[in-house]
Amino acid sequence: MNRAESFRLALITGGAASGKSRFAEALVTGTGRPRCYIATARAWDDEMRAKIARHRDQRGSGWRLVEAPEALADALRAVGAEETVLVDCLTMWLSNLLLAEADLDRAAADLCGALRDCPAQVVCVTNEVGLGIVPDNALARRFRDAQGRLNQTVAGQADLAVAVMAGLPLVLKGHLPDG
Amino acid sequence: MNRAESFRLALITGGAASGKSRFAEALVTGTGRPRCYIATARAWDDEMRAKIARHRDQRGSGWRLVEAPEALADALRAVGAEETVLVDCLTMWLSNLLLAEADLDRAAADLCGALRDCPAQVVCVTNEVGLGIVPDNALARRFRDAQGRLNQTVAGQADLAVAVMAGLPLVLKGHLPDG
Amino acid sequence: MNRAESFRLALITGGAASGKSRFAEALVTGTGRPRCYIATARAWDDEMRAKIARHRDQRGSGWRLVEAPEALADALRAVGAEETVLVDCLTMWLSNLLLAEADLDRAAADLCGALRDCPAQVVCVTNEVGLGIVPDNALARRFRDAQGRLNQTVAGQADLAVAVMAGLPLVLKGHLPDG
Repeated sequence: MNRAESFRLALITGGAASGKSRFAEALVTGTGRPRCYIATARAWDDEMRAKIARHRDQRGSGWRLVEAPEALADALRAVGAEETVLVDCLTMWLSNLLLAEADLDRAAADLCGALRDCPAQVVCVTNEVGLGIVPDNALARRFRDAQGRLNQTVAGQADLAVAVMAGLPLVLKGHLPDG
Repeated sequence: MNRAESFRLALITGGAASGKSRFAEALVTGTGRPRCYIATARAWDDEMRAKIARHRDQRGSGWRLVEAPEALADALRAVGAEETVLVDCLTMWLSNLLLAEADLDRAAADLCGALRDCPAQVVCVTNEVGLGIVPDNALARRFRDAQGRLNQTVAGQADLAVAVMAGLPLVLKGHLPDG
Repeated sequence: MNRAESFRLALITGGAASGKSRFAEALVTGTGRPRCYIATARAWDDEMRAKIARHRDQRGSGWRLVEAPEALADALRAVGAEETVLVDCLTMWLSNLLLAEADLDRAAADLCGALRDCPAQVVCVTNEVGLGIVPDNALARRFRDAQGRLNQTVAGQADLAVAVMAGLPLVLKGHLPDG
């Protein structure tokens, strides 16, 4: 494998504002391949609009943008083989599906199939949401369990898995590309 | 030490749905010794009953089951020296004691004594609950402090400590058995 | 660099009750230099008073105490070059500023300047607060984003960054001093 193909599927996980998106963007840019950004966030209020704008400013130009708040599996099957794809993030996607009352286990299985079939190199950003006190709210408990299971499944398929804390990587699986 | 005794006491920690139970089960099974499962969960509602059933299906057969929602120290002193014991989990046990208004520090000290005295090889599963926003609720704050202190104490006694994230191990102390 | 100067700025992060303060105290004590403790907590209720007393008992005597619940940057600029300074912790400081309705980004930039200018060796303790479920409360979300960004910035400046879990260190950047 050359450097651009030092991984096939990478999972970048971490807490809120841990620097995981920035780390994932640098990983994609480092491949030197055409960059595709699959955004899963929905701009439903000012806070989200501000967050989306911050992420857009941070990653800069040179990305082909695809919006896939729910149809992420379809989006992954449609990318070009020459691209490196950044999915940011699985947590937004999963919470969109939860709000749409979708079957989360089925959606997760479909996503994992699409990650296998996807012709491109893919970097998925996700969140750790299970290291706090048990939420009072049953829906929040369902969500954190579904998120945890999804992270396990994608990490199981990935050849690179990295936790980011305070902007710094902890490699969980595989090896970071040199340089 | 042969492989079966590559550790005496292991602590497996992580967030909710992080894969820590599955990892701990594989660690116990890998020893090749008779397996004892000490369950601390109480089936007080449908959500817990479903969770208990999922864990039971996941670990499969071949385990001697002991239920110890509160009397965990006694249960540990009563196991056979030839067994490898999985305690799943310290967080359920601690929350049962909190609800029973027990003295958590005294219970933790008693548990640590029992872990020292226990004739068997032991793997304890526990949770990280302190990496979210400070809870509004004073009881929740007391619980997360007690859980954090308990994890520190057990990890201090353990010769193997592992954090699991997205199903993948981060070794905090000691060495994973080969294979 | 001799052992006392094996780092210039260290960041010790982790969850509540993870043992991060104890670890940071040992790191400072290990340098063998005069110790300065910059406390950022405010004793506004019995719970905080008890926590402050516990920390004081834990670290023992031999520390010069400076209280800086808000004016942390000034305090850092005023320490002696021969000292090793423990700031415990950035999370309390940031939450004091949030309650005082200060500009958090500006305060963070000022703090980072002071950390660069500070003549002494410094160890900062901070918290991971972003690995739970998204808080319902908008102020809590603002806080966890500000905390995450602050941790990234300080870690970026630090030559040693360590996450503590169950009392055990995971090195994120740099190398722990020997011994």
